[in-house]
Amino acid sequence: MLALEAMGGDNAPGETCAGAIMACEKFTDLEIALVGDSEAIAPLLVNTCAPVRKRLHLVHAEEKIAMDEPPAVAVRKKRGSSLRIAMQMVRSGEAQGCVSAGSTGAIVAAGVLVVGRIPGIERPGLGVPLPAVNRISMLIDIGATVRCKPLNLFQFALMGDVYMRKIIGVDSPSIGLLSNGQEEAKGDELIIEAREYFKNGRLNFIGNVEGGGIPFGAADVVVCEGLTGNILLKFIEGTGEAIYSLIREEIDRRFLAKMGMVFMVPMLKDLWARFNYEETGGTPLLGVNGAVIKAHGRSRARAICGAIRVAREFVNKRGVQTIAEELAEGVKRG
Amino acid sequence: MLALEAMGGDNAPGETCAGAIMACEKFTDLEIALVGDSEAIAPLLVNTCAPVRKRLHLVHAEEKIAMDEPPAVAVRKKRGSSLRIAMQMVRSGEAQGCVSAGSTGAIVAAGVLVVGRIPGIERPGLGVPLPAVNRISMLIDIGATVRCKPLNLFQFALMGDVYMRKIIGVDSPSIGLLSNGQEEAKGDELIIEAREYFKNGRLNFIGNVEGGGIPFGAADVVVCEGLTGNILLKFIEGTGEAIYSLIREEIDRRFLAKMGMVFMVPMLKDLWARFNYEETGGTPLLGVNGAVIKAHGRSRARAICGAIRVAREFVNKRGVQTIAEELAEGVKRG
Repeated sequence: MLALEAMGGDNAPGETCAGAIMACEKFTDLEIALVGDSEAIAPLLVNTCAPVRKRLHLVHAEEKIAMDEPPAVAVRKKRGSSLRIAMQMVRSGEAQGCVSAGSTGAIVAAGVLVVGRIPGIERPGLGVPLPAVNRISMLIDIGATVRCKPLNLFQFALMGDVYMRKIIGVDSPSIGLLSNGQEEAKGDELIIEAREYFKNGRLNFIGNVEGGGIPFGAADVVVCEGLTGNILLKFIEGTGEAIYSLIREEIDRRFLAKMGMVFMVPMLKDLWARFNYEETGGTPLLGVNGAVIKAHGRSRARAICGAIRVAREFVNKRGVQTIAEELAEGVKRG
Repeated sequence: MLALEAMGGDNAPGETCAGAIMACEKFTDLEIALVGDSEAIAPLLVNTCAPVRKRLHLVHAEEKIAMDEPPAVAVRKKRGSSLRIAMQMVRSGEAQGCVSAGSTGAIVAAGVLVVGRIPGIERPGLGVPLPAVNRISMLIDIGATVRCKPLNLFQFALMGDVYMRKIIGVDSPSIGLLSNGQEEAKGDELIIEAREYFKNGRLNFIGNVEGGGIPFGAADVVVCEGLTGNILLKFIEGTGEAIYSLIREEIDRRFLAKMGMVFMVPMLKDLWARFNYEETGGTPLLGVNGAVIKAHGRSRARAICGAIRVAREFVNKRGVQTIAEELAEGVKRG
């Protein structure tokens, strides 16, 4: 069973519950606990067909954590919040993993506080699979650990490596440190010191990667501090929206462009699908001792369903256990 | 007179000299010193018409600094390099400003070492005018000061404010600190401490700005550390290239898209012009005691000409003096 924190995100609980239904229709063995205000959730399930409905379980939560609450404080205070209850289900083993579209800060805080960290992991990292030309590339961290120590960056790399091998299916993923130049001398003290950790050669470390290399998939795993990753990820989303609005505005003004657009719709749809977070699904919070997947705050049903799929795969492929084992034993290749 | 360091960049000296010729054709009062290997440069000027040719002066330099040399060391050792000689011309007053398409690190090092800083400015900042929806927004710093102290960020804001008012012509430019969220609590210690400097209210400070706000022009001046700014800027360039290559590849595969493209060319050209660095020109190294403009390393003639135009304007509008005055007196508005 997976726990879905049903109250988080801009479109909860309507779209979160619709996403859960969609996922249960897709995966016929899947059971989902919908954690949240059961009075609000129950009516959303009335039209669900019986074989799906019986795999959806209501778990009532008295309160929820809003997007704009100071996350650490809210997680500590609101012991009856849907997020804490969903996380507790993971901790107790009642659920094998959980998904939330709530605020990043709250998910990270609750993950560390309630689920706990994998022994040996100092700080968790949120890794987002980014579409690059001809591949999926993971950017980690995008906001779990705002400022990092060198060891944190190394551990992000290690966890990203496991994720890319086990979940995405990439052999010997290449790892790059995001920096202001490819040369060894580039970067600040943090980056230069982090490089020392890679010298044992257990990971396929390729050195520094520049910002310009990301869209070309310069590395399978691109490692950076949470502050940088967050700024970059939001910039990507914002740019997509800005370009979309600019193109639409231009097309409204120009007749020929409008005609041209008609011919191009199939192509643009394909391109869009490659860069659309709804397709790539959720973002794993790596380093906590359970499968915790963050869905985008603006997720609609399809994106929630995608995040549930990611959680399911992460559980089935023993993502957490693999990280723990490789950390404990030293990474074994092949 | 402006000094053009003619040997820096991927297309030097052919394109740098062509850019200088273009600029002299455009501005009939402009004189340019071409600093570099005079044997290589002289032949490039033979077909230039007399009224332009007489405003181009050759200043010989024995050596040059390559893109991949460790910048600080190279600037110290190569006293006869074209970059140092161009900068010395600014320092001595022989040239009113200089332009180079050489490596960022070398330009920053030579700027600080040879031209010197404006009294009171602790670290220089490279500010790039970024096209956003409906406006030009300045991102500062993009790589002059990799890691910053809170005071550095504040001084970037102050210099960006002067640049936007004097050169771009924006009244009371809004200033934002690039962070992982808009809320006051977001950011790390650096950002939170930097905010203190803005409390005197002299600048139009609007608080934190997210990465997603940049393409929408969330602030006229977006302030960040050089590491972050550099990663972001290179990411922008890389994304443009990646999208361009993807679209071209898709269009080659699809007949209808190819037809559609024909209708869309005028629109795409306009959009491209808005986001093309060749149009926006050079990047001012703010905080050094002279007009120093960095052109893109890949600049062709048109971009060099744009950078020269920026240098000329910066000189004519007394950019350096204004920063120095406002820093000394306290910023006076209106």
